[in-house]
Amino acid sequence: MTTDRERAAFEAGIKLGALYHQWVGMPVSRETAGMVERAIEKSVSLQPFVTDIAVRLDAKLMDPNPFGYSEIRGAMFSVVMGTKVGEARCRASLAFEGDYPLMKILECD
Amino acid sequence: MTTDRERAAFEAGIKLGALYHQWVGMPVSRETAGMVERAIEKSVSLQPFVTDIAVRLDAKLMDPNPFGYSEIRGAMFSVVMGTKVGEARCRASLAFEGDYPLMKILECD
Amino acid sequence: MTTDRERAAFEAGIKLGALYHQWVGMPVSRETAGMVERAIEKSVSLQPFVTDIAVRLDAKLMDPNPFGYSEIRGAMFSVVMGTKVGEARCRASLAFEGDYPLMKILECD
Amino acid sequence: MTTDRERAAFEAGIKLGALYHQWVGMPVSRETAGMVERAIEKSVSLQPFVTDIAVRLDAKLMDPNPFGYSEIRGAMFSVVMGTKVGEARCRASLAFEGDYPLMKILECD
Repeated sequence: MTTDRERAAFEAGIKLGALYHQWVGMPVSRETAGMVERAIEKSVSLQPFVTDIAVRLDAKLMDPNPFGYSEIRGAMFSVVMGTKVGEARCRASLAFEGDYPLMKILECD
Repeated sequence: MTTDRERAAFEAGIKLGALYHQWVGMPVSRETAGMVERAIEKSVSLQPFVTDIAVRLDAKLMDPNPFGYSEIRGAMFSVVMGTKVGEARCRASLAFEGDYPLMKILECD
Repeated sequence: MTTDRERAAFEAGIKLGALYHQWVGMPVSRETAGMVERAIEKSVSLQPFVTDIAVRLDAKLMDPNPFGYSEIRGAMFSVVMGTKVGEARCRASLAFEGDYPLMKILECD
Repeated sequence: MTTDRERAAFEAGIKLGALYHQWVGMPVSRETAGMVERAIEKSVSLQPFVTDIAVRLDAKLMDPNPFGYSEIRGAMFSVVMGTKVGEARCRASLAFEGDYPLMKILECD
């Protein structure tokens, strides 16, 4: 009743939804951004069905608040990740499009 | 390259992954559990492609800590929800199975 | 070595810091804002040493995204709360001041 | 009406409360624990009034779930941190005591 491609898409959705709400609000600065990107990648990579993930946080949006740091918000994310269930693979992304942190499937095969 | 069923599955994954990480750790008690269940349902229902959602938190697991309350953890969740993209529909669930808060597709059509 | 006033201030800080990071990113709309405010109040009230709390989310900042809802962000919060440790009481607030979601002690006695 | 010591205690509370709710639920394993500890330390160190912080996550509690990883929970944390406001300093900790992730002031001066 459910295909492996559908399951691969489902798993990609889980990871992106979780990632977003786990990390939004986290303190970040241009100096720590690289470390945070790696931490997000490692954290997601621990989870089942993930084949690869690349995370970038837009440093241009990290305007320091009066105390010299920023908080991660949806507009900063640029994520591309892959999942695999059985032989099916899915690629999905999180990026800011049209004033919204959009999650979408790039391709399934 | 991507079917509406795959997109409906992806959207269901997003919502379950987000819900889990947004609410885990939230203070809860047997007295407030019903209100929290409704708040989760309302919060998820605001999001695109969601047709319905039912959330239950297992009150039996809400053993009070020394201060008289609990925190939401994965084992407490019992969620069934639906998404719709185009004419495709997907039903998915979050429930504790085998010592893991498992998210799975129930059916797509 | 530590006074009850200091402990009351510490407890207020714990609750405001926790509240902020627990709820930032949560989907909200003008229709659900009141319910979310009550849920935050109930959640914080479960925790030790809290005497009272009032939460308001600024509906003027809830500009709908393309899908018709918003996410809670720091600028929306207006919170005043009290703690009591022994006979000492502390009042503290969270409000947006100078482009920052500032938490501060209003008074201790 | 408020002393610098009280403000230092308040700031320590904010950081511990925020840290706890920001990181609970995060996927972790014995292999990634060190990196997560450093990420938490860096994240907290960005925030105002923090002088130092040391974070340890108890690897003994990281029993792998069926998919080979764990999620951070309150019992894993061992945190000691310092804040400074004016000339006042406060040291505070988060540790599991009596079945509860207890936050407490160690000393203020």
